[in-house]
Amino acid sequence: MLDAVKTGLKPEGDRPEEACGVFGVYGPGLDVSHLTYLGIYALQHRGQESAGIAVADRHDVYMHKAMGLVPQAFDEKILGNLRGDIAIGHVRYSTTGSSLLVNAQPLLVRYQHGALALAHNGNLVNALELRRELEAKGHIFQTTIDSEVIASLIAQLDTGSVEDAVLGCMEKLRGSYALVMLTKDKLIGVRDPYGIRPLSVGVIGDAYVLASETCALDAVGAEFVADVAPGEMVVIDGDGLHRRQSPVAGKESLCIFEHIYFARPDSDLDGRNVHTIRKQFGAQLAREHPVAADIVFPVPDSGMSAAIGYAEASGIPFTEGMIKNRYIGRTFIQPNQDIREAAVKIKLNPIRKVLAGKRVIVVDDSIVRGTTSAKIVQMIRDAGAVEVHMRISSPPVRFPCHFGIDTQTQAELVAANHSPQEVRQLIGADSLGYLSLEGMFRAVQMEAGRFCAACFDGRYPFDIGPWMKNDKYVLEND
Amino acid sequence: MLDAVKTGLKPEGDRPEEACGVFGVYGPGLDVSHLTYLGIYALQHRGQESAGIAVADRHDVYMHKAMGLVPQAFDEKILGNLRGDIAIGHVRYSTTGSSLLVNAQPLLVRYQHGALALAHNGNLVNALELRRELEAKGHIFQTTIDSEVIASLIAQLDTGSVEDAVLGCMEKLRGSYALVMLTKDKLIGVRDPYGIRPLSVGVIGDAYVLASETCALDAVGAEFVADVAPGEMVVIDGDGLHRRQSPVAGKESLCIFEHIYFARPDSDLDGRNVHTIRKQFGAQLAREHPVAADIVFPVPDSGMSAAIGYAEASGIPFTEGMIKNRYIGRTFIQPNQDIREAAVKIKLNPIRKVLAGKRVIVVDDSIVRGTTSAKIVQMIRDAGAVEVHMRISSPPVRFPCHFGIDTQTQAELVAANHSPQEVRQLIGADSLGYLSLEGMFRAVQMEAGRFCAACFDGRYPFDIGPWMKNDKYVLEND
Amino acid sequence: MLDAVKTGLKPEGDRPEEACGVFGVYGPGLDVSHLTYLGIYALQHRGQESAGIAVADRHDVYMHKAMGLVPQAFDEKILGNLRGDIAIGHVRYSTTGSSLLVNAQPLLVRYQHGALALAHNGNLVNALELRRELEAKGHIFQTTIDSEVIASLIAQLDTGSVEDAVLGCMEKLRGSYALVMLTKDKLIGVRDPYGIRPLSVGVIGDAYVLASETCALDAVGAEFVADVAPGEMVVIDGDGLHRRQSPVAGKESLCIFEHIYFARPDSDLDGRNVHTIRKQFGAQLAREHPVAADIVFPVPDSGMSAAIGYAEASGIPFTEGMIKNRYIGRTFIQPNQDIREAAVKIKLNPIRKVLAGKRVIVVDDSIVRGTTSAKIVQMIRDAGAVEVHMRISSPPVRFPCHFGIDTQTQAELVAANHSPQEVRQLIGADSLGYLSLEGMFRAVQMEAGRFCAACFDGRYPFDIGPWMKNDKYVLEND
Amino acid sequence: MLDAVKTGLKPEGDRPEEACGVFGVYGPGLDVSHLTYLGIYALQHRGQESAGIAVADRHDVYMHKAMGLVPQAFDEKILGNLRGDIAIGHVRYSTTGSSLLVNAQPLLVRYQHGALALAHNGNLVNALELRRELEAKGHIFQTTIDSEVIASLIAQLDTGSVEDAVLGCMEKLRGSYALVMLTKDKLIGVRDPYGIRPLSVGVIGDAYVLASETCALDAVGAEFVADVAPGEMVVIDGDGLHRRQSPVAGKESLCIFEHIYFARPDSDLDGRNVHTIRKQFGAQLAREHPVAADIVFPVPDSGMSAAIGYAEASGIPFTEGMIKNRYIGRTFIQPNQDIREAAVKIKLNPIRKVLAGKRVIVVDDSIVRGTTSAKIVQMIRDAGAVEVHMRISSPPVRFPCHFGIDTQTQAELVAANHSPQEVRQLIGADSLGYLSLEGMFRAVQMEAGRFCAACFDGRYPFDIGPWMKNDKYVLEND
Repeated sequence: MLDAVKTGLKPEGDRPEEACGVFGVYGPGLDVSHLTYLGIYALQHRGQESAGIAVADRHDVYMHKAMGLVPQAFDEKILGNLRGDIAIGHVRYSTTGSSLLVNAQPLLVRYQHGALALAHNGNLVNALELRRELEAKGHIFQTTIDSEVIASLIAQLDTGSVEDAVLGCMEKLRGSYALVMLTKDKLIGVRDPYGIRPLSVGVIGDAYVLASETCALDAVGAEFVADVAPGEMVVIDGDGLHRRQSPVAGKESLCIFEHIYFARPDSDLDGRNVHTIRKQFGAQLAREHPVAADIVFPVPDSGMSAAIGYAEASGIPFTEGMIKNRYIGRTFIQPNQDIREAAVKIKLNPIRKVLAGKRVIVVDDSIVRGTTSAKIVQMIRDAGAVEVHMRISSPPVRFPCHFGIDTQTQAELVAANHSPQEVRQLIGADSLGYLSLEGMFRAVQMEAGRFCAACFDGRYPFDIGPWMKNDKYVLEND
Repeated sequence: MLDAVKTGLKPEGDRPEEACGVFGVYGPGLDVSHLTYLGIYALQHRGQESAGIAVADRHDVYMHKAMGLVPQAFDEKILGNLRGDIAIGHVRYSTTGSSLLVNAQPLLVRYQHGALALAHNGNLVNALELRRELEAKGHIFQTTIDSEVIASLIAQLDTGSVEDAVLGCMEKLRGSYALVMLTKDKLIGVRDPYGIRPLSVGVIGDAYVLASETCALDAVGAEFVADVAPGEMVVIDGDGLHRRQSPVAGKESLCIFEHIYFARPDSDLDGRNVHTIRKQFGAQLAREHPVAADIVFPVPDSGMSAAIGYAEASGIPFTEGMIKNRYIGRTFIQPNQDIREAAVKIKLNPIRKVLAGKRVIVVDDSIVRGTTSAKIVQMIRDAGAVEVHMRISSPPVRFPCHFGIDTQTQAELVAANHSPQEVRQLIGADSLGYLSLEGMFRAVQMEAGRFCAACFDGRYPFDIGPWMKNDKYVLEND
Repeated sequence: MLDAVKTGLKPEGDRPEEACGVFGVYGPGLDVSHLTYLGIYALQHRGQESAGIAVADRHDVYMHKAMGLVPQAFDEKILGNLRGDIAIGHVRYSTTGSSLLVNAQPLLVRYQHGALALAHNGNLVNALELRRELEAKGHIFQTTIDSEVIASLIAQLDTGSVEDAVLGCMEKLRGSYALVMLTKDKLIGVRDPYGIRPLSVGVIGDAYVLASETCALDAVGAEFVADVAPGEMVVIDGDGLHRRQSPVAGKESLCIFEHIYFARPDSDLDGRNVHTIRKQFGAQLAREHPVAADIVFPVPDSGMSAAIGYAEASGIPFTEGMIKNRYIGRTFIQPNQDIREAAVKIKLNPIRKVLAGKRVIVVDDSIVRGTTSAKIVQMIRDAGAVEVHMRISSPPVRFPCHFGIDTQTQAELVAANHSPQEVRQLIGADSLGYLSLEGMFRAVQMEAGRFCAACFDGRYPFDIGPWMKNDKYVLEND
Repeated sequence: MLDAVKTGLKPEGDRPEEACGVFGVYGPGLDVSHLTYLGIYALQHRGQESAGIAVADRHDVYMHKAMGLVPQAFDEKILGNLRGDIAIGHVRYSTTGSSLLVNAQPLLVRYQHGALALAHNGNLVNALELRRELEAKGHIFQTTIDSEVIASLIAQLDTGSVEDAVLGCMEKLRGSYALVMLTKDKLIGVRDPYGIRPLSVGVIGDAYVLASETCALDAVGAEFVADVAPGEMVVIDGDGLHRRQSPVAGKESLCIFEHIYFARPDSDLDGRNVHTIRKQFGAQLAREHPVAADIVFPVPDSGMSAAIGYAEASGIPFTEGMIKNRYIGRTFIQPNQDIREAAVKIKLNPIRKVLAGKRVIVVDDSIVRGTTSAKIVQMIRDAGAVEVHMRISSPPVRFPCHFGIDTQTQAELVAANHSPQEVRQLIGADSLGYLSLEGMFRAVQMEAGRFCAACFDGRYPFDIGPWMKNDKYVLEND
C-alpha cells in the first residue's frame, strides 16, 4: 500500500514517504558517471522527483540534475559529458510544495577552498536555526534544502582542511543525515551520530563506493565492505580510505521504517537483510494475531515479504490476491468524478476468482491515514471475500517523524487519534492486527534501543524539544 | 524472465513477445476517450511500443496515436479533444525493424461508406497473399500492418452493410485476429474462427465494452458479460448488441501462451482465471519434477503464480529470492563493455542472505533462447546457492508461432535443437524440469484440443502449409 | 503584412497563404538527406507546419516527417539514419483544421511495383472527384491530401513503367501541381501543364537537384540548369536526366502571387528575379499613384522590395518605419483581453521619431481581409504621422484561388465587395493605391496571358466550372 | 553581420556579443507576468540563451527560468502560475562555457530580510575581487554570475532598509550594471554611475515599467517617462516612484555600441532614436568614404539603417543585395565538411541578378575578427559583382570591452593588429572604409565624452587598471 503515493495518485497519499538516496564512487580510470547512474537507478525507490550527478576530475567539478526519474534526467550524451574520477549522485522525493529544480541535489557550491558538491539523505531538525544564524551574518540562500546550510557551515569552518570542517560541522548539526560529498580530489561520506539513515561502503577493485543501500553496491558490481558507523566520516582520496569519528556522542538508532518499508528487500542494513527481517515481522504478526482464514496475500509490493512470513508461520496458504499495474506512473491523468470510482482498480485489481467466497488475510506494511486501507478492504469485499482480516507488519504510527520521513502532523495519523479497534471500523475490516512494538524488536533480534522507532513510541533518539513545538519547522527534507 | 525484453534490455531478448491489446467502448453520454485510456492502460503489459485511441461522435471519427507508453502518448489536452460516443484503443508491441509511428494503431481510413477505424491483435498468415491480390488491382499501402489489408478488404466488400463486409472479409482472412472496429455510429468486435486471441464483452450500465482481457473491464468498472465466441462478430449500435456468427468453421483454440505468460494474472480468459491456471501449472510441475530443496522462488514477475503453486504442492517454503528493479524502462543507457558485467544486477538482484548456502528451486514460465536463464542461474550461484534447480511452467518451445507472437525462427529456439538435458547444461542448472504437454492440459482441466499449443507440439489449428515455408512471410504482427 | 499569419498571431490571418515547398536530389555518393535538409530549410518560408524527408538507397525507401519547423522535425541522429542516394523533402503550410501529422508529406506508399514517395506543392481541383472514383472501386484513404489520390492513380496506371504511369496520371489531374517523387532508384519531377507552381532543376557536379525555388539550389551549392517546363516530367536515374512532355496541352500560367509575395526575393522564377520584379511593381505603383510625402517605408518584410522601387521612382526618401520582432514564432502566448491591445506592438513596432510629424507612404504587397492593414494604419497615426498613404504592390484580390493558396471565400475578400475607396475608408488611410492589372503585367514585361492572375481578374487558366460551385470542394492543399 | 553568432552558426562568431536585457513592472491589478513575458520578448535580441521571470505577490516571490528563447522557456501554464503584483524578467546571452541553467537569471535569494530577485545587464570588473572578499568570510557561491555577488553584498549591507543596502552596494561595485530587482513589495531599478548600459522608465496608467530599451515599453503599451540617470536608483512601492542618487560620482558614458549594433532600431536610448543615429552614421560614412558605384545594400539586418543613410547621402541607389533566411536558429545541424562549403548560403544568399556586373557598396555595422566579412565579400564576387566596396558604420574595434560585451581579447581583434588597408586585403574588398571616431561623434551630435567608446579609443570611463591586466578576470557577463 505504501506505494500509493509513489504512483502519483495523489488522493491516496496515505503513507510515510521516504526522502532520498545517495551514492558516491571514487574510481580513477572507471566510468564513474555511468557507475553513479547505475547506483542511483538502483536507489530510485527512495526518490522519484529529481535525480542528479556531480563529477570531479581533479581540476573541477561538473554537474547535471533534472526533475523526474533517473532515465528521464540522463541520456547518453549528458552522461558522456560528465567525465572524471569521482562522482556522487542523488535521487530525491519531496512534497509537492517545493518540487522545484532548484531544490534538486547534489548541491554544487564554490567557496574559498574550491568546489564542493553535496548529496544528503535525512533531515536536520535545527536547519532553520542554523540558517537564521548564517543569515544574520549576511549569508544568502537560494534553496530550501538542508544541504545549502551544511555547505555554508563547512565553508565557514574550513581553514584549510575540508575534513576538519566537516567534523566541525557535525558538531552543529542536529538531525538525521547520510551525506556524500566530493571536492575536486576527495570523496567524503558521513553518517549522523545516531546513524538514523543508512550508508554503506563497497569496493570495485581499487575503487570505493558509498551507497544508501547495498542493492546499489550490487548494481555496480561492488563488494560490500562495511557500513559507515554512526558519527563516522570516511574520506577517500589518492591515499585510500580514511576513517574519522566525530566526537559527538550518539547511540545507534537506525530508522526502523527502513526495514518496514523504505529499503529494498535485497538490501542489507547494518548487517541485516531487509526481506528476512520483514518475513520475521510477518511471522511474529501471525503469532500475535492469528485468525482462521483460507488464504494470505499481500498488498503488493510493500506487504510481500511479511505476507510470506505470515503464511509460513500460520500454515495458511500464500497467494497473490491483487495485481498491481506495473505501468502506472506519475503522469496518470485523473479521470473526472464520473468515472473516478470506476477507475480505482486501474492501479490495484483484486483477482475475483481467488478471493470469491474466501476468508482472507491481507498483509500490508503500515497504515498512515487509513484511506487507502479502507479502499482496499472494500475492493476485496466487492470481489467476493466473505471475511477480510487486515494485518499490519508494524505498530500503529502515532508520532511524527523528524528525521526525513514526510509524515503528516499528528492530526493526520489515524492511529494517533484512534484505537486499533476504531481503525478497524474505519477501514471496514473484520479484524485488524498490528505488530506489537515488542514483537517488532524481537523479530529484529535486537534490544529496542538500537533503532529509532519514535514514530511508534515517541522516544526520539535525542531531545528535539525546541524544534518540535512547531510542526512546520522544517525547511525541507532531503 | 519473460519481462526481459519488455525492459528494453535488448541483449536479453530471450522470450516470445506478445503483440498488442485492444479495447472498445460504446457509451453515449460517457467520457469514452478517458475510459479507453484506462482500458489500454490496463492492457499496457500487452504492448509498450505505441498507443492510440480513435473516437466517433456520430458525424466523424478522430484519432490520436503516438510512440511510447500510454501516459507518454496521451495528456489531458489530447484526451480532452477526443470527444464522442464510441471509442477504440490499442497498445502495440513490435520488433524494432518496424518500430514506426506509421504502424501504430488504430488505423483510421475513409472509404466510400465513410470512416472506419481498426485495432488488431493477432497475425494473419495470408496477409502478404491478400495484399498482393489488392496491389494487383492497383491498391497502395502505407503501412506494414495487417489492419490495412483488412480495411482494404472491407472497403472492397462493403456494398452498403459494413457488417456483411466484415463477415465476408472473415472468409478471406487466415490467421489469428481479435479486432475492434468503429464506424461513425457502430462498435464492432470480431474474433477469428479459432479464437486464438482473447476478446471479452462487458457492460457499464447501458454501455458496452470490449477488451482483450477482463482486467481492462475491471479497470473501467465494467461487469463481465461474455467472451466473444470464436468466429463471432458482435456489433453494438443504437439498438444494442447484435451477435452474428461467421460461417467459416473453426475449432476453439485459444493460445495457451496467454495463460502461460501474456495475460495478467487477474484476467479470466474464456472463463478461466490466469493466476489460478498458473498456480496449477506450478503444482503439476512439482508433481512431475520434484527435488529436495530448501526454498522455492520465482523469476519475478513472470514465474510468480507458478512458483506459489510449486511451493504449495511440494511443501517447500516459498520466498522471494530475486528483486526486480521496478523503474528500469526502455530508455536504460547501456553501460560500456567494462561495466556491463557489473551492471547485470541493476535489473534483477538476488537476495544473498536468502540464497547463501541453500538448495534452491527457481521457477520461470518459459525458456526461449536460454541466454537469460543462464545468466540467472549464474547470478543465483554467485549469491551462494549450493544447488540451483530450474523449473519451467510450460513445455519446451520447439515450433515457431504464426499467430501473433514474435518468436525467433526455429533455429533460435534452444529447445528445438537441444534436449532438456542439453538445455540444462547450457544454462548451468543442477536440474531442469519442464512441465509436460499432458500435465499442462491436465492443469487447465480440458482436453488438449481446446487450445493452440503449436509452439510446443507443432499442431497448428489449421493448415498453414503454404505460408509456413518462408519464415519471413509476415508483414507485421499486430 | 503578409507575414502576419506566419507568426501564428491568429487574429491577423489577413492574407493569402502559400502552401508547401518541394525539393529533391539524385546524388549517389553525396549526403542526400543533409542536402535535402538544407534545401527545405531554404524553402521554410513556403510552409512552417510540418517537414519531411524520404530517402531511397536502391533497395528501399525510408522516411521521417514531423510537425513543426525543419529544425524541430530533424536532429542529427534522425538525419544520420536517412542514408541513401536519392532524397525528396517537403515543407507544408495548412489551415488549422487538418493540421495533423498524417497529412504531412512526403507520402510514402508501396504498391505492386515497389515503393513510391511523393511531395506535392499545389492543389488539384478535381481531387474529390478522382477520390470518389477510386473509392467506388473499393480503395481506402488515410489522409486528406492530394498526394494520396495521385499515388493511387499512379498505382492503378503502372503496368511496368512508372514514367508512363505518371504521364497517364497527368491526363487525369486538373489543377496545380509541382511534384517531386522518388522510387528506389529514380527521382521524378513534374509540373502541371500550366506551370502554376514553380519547379527548377540544378546540378552539383554529376548530381541533380529539383526545387520549388532557386534559393534552395543556392543553399546546397547547386548551379541552376533550367526550369521544369509546364507539363513536363523530368526523370533522373543512373543514365542521367530524361525529359518527357505530357500530351496534355496547357498555357504557361505561373501564379503571379509567387512574384508578389510567396517566393523569396533571391529566387528566380522562370528566369525572372523576384526582388527585381517586386521593385518594378513598386516603381510602377509610384507612377500610377503618386502623392506628396516625406518618407516611404515598407511593411516588413513583405513590402520591402516594392517600397525600395516606389521610393526610387518617386524620389521620396526610403526609410525603415516599423521594426519587426524577429523572434515571434508559432508559440506566442496570446495575452488576455486586458493587455491584448497593449501587446499589438510586440510583433511590429513603429519608430516614433521617424514617423512623428511626417506625411508617410507605407507599402505592402497585398490586402486580403483588411483588418491587419487597419491596425497598421492606426499604429502609424498613433506614432505621430500626419498623413498615412497606403500603397499596395498588387491589384485588389477579388476572386478565390483554386490552385494552392488558402484564401478565404469571396465573402471574406474585402476587395471583392468594396471599391478601393471603400477599402481606404475601412483601413483608415488618407489615400490608398493598388497597382493596376495592366501596370503589374507591364512591370513583369510580359503579356498578361503568361501568368495566372485569376485572384485579380477571375480568368482561371482553364475552366474550373464544375468544381468552382462549391467553395469547400477541396480536400486539402499541398 | 552581427547577427551571425545569434544564429548559432558558431564558425562565424565574428562579432561583439551583447549580454542581456532586463525588464520590470510594478502593477497591482495587472497581469504582471504576462506583461513581463511581452517585455522580454521585445528584448529577445539582447539574449537568446535563457529567459526568466520572477514575480512577487506581497507575501513571497516565485520564479521560473529556463534555457532557450522566451517562447521555449514559457508556456501558458507556467505563466499562469506566476501570479503577483510585481515582476522582473531577464534574457541572457553568454559564451558557451557557462551556458548552464544555474547561470540563468533572475537570481532569487532569501536572506535575513526576506526574498530578493535580481536581473542584471552589464559586467562588473571587480566581481572576482568582491567575491574573494566574501569567500574569505565563509560565503559560498552557486553560480558564476555577477548577480550573486551583488545579492551577497546587499545581504551584508542590509540593516533594515534594502534601499540603503543597494546604495551602499553601489559604492563597492565597479563596472557596468543596469539592474532590476524586486522584494516582496518593491521594484528597484539601478543604473551604474556611468550609465554604461541603458535603462528606461515607463508607465501604464498607475503602473510602472522598467526596461533595457524603449521598444519593450512599446511592446507592453507603456508610455516612456524618463531614463534612469547614471548612478540613480528608482524604487517603486505602494507610495509610487522614489528616486535616489548614488553619491558615487560618474560621468555619463553610454556604450556607443548600443547605438551601433545592440539596440533595436525602434528604441530610443537616452533620448536618441537608434535608427536615426545609425542612418546618420551611414550618411557620415558616405561623406568620409565616397566611391563610384552602382548600388548600395546592407548586410542584413545589422547594416540596414546605415546603408539607407549611406545611399541617401551619396545618391547611389539603395537596394537589397543579400537575403537572410529568417528561420535559421540555434539548432541548425552543421553539414559535414563535404557540403559545408555548399551550405554557406543557407543563412545569407546574394541576389545574383541584382549584383551581377555591378560595382557594389555593402554596408555593415562593424568588423571584429574579419572572417565573416571575408566570406561575404567572396559571396558577392561569386554572384558577379565587378567591384566590392565595404563600408563599416563604426571605427575599427581595437580594444577589449570590459563592460558587458563578449569581445575577444585584443589578439583576436583584427583591427588591433592590422591597418585598415591590411584588413581590406584580408577580407578581399576593393576598398574598405571605416567611420572615423570624430565622424561618429559628430553623427551623434554630442561631444565625445558623453559615450563610452573605449573599444575604439581605449579610453575607459574609469581606471580599470588593476583588473585589466588579466584578460580572464571576469567571472561572467550578465
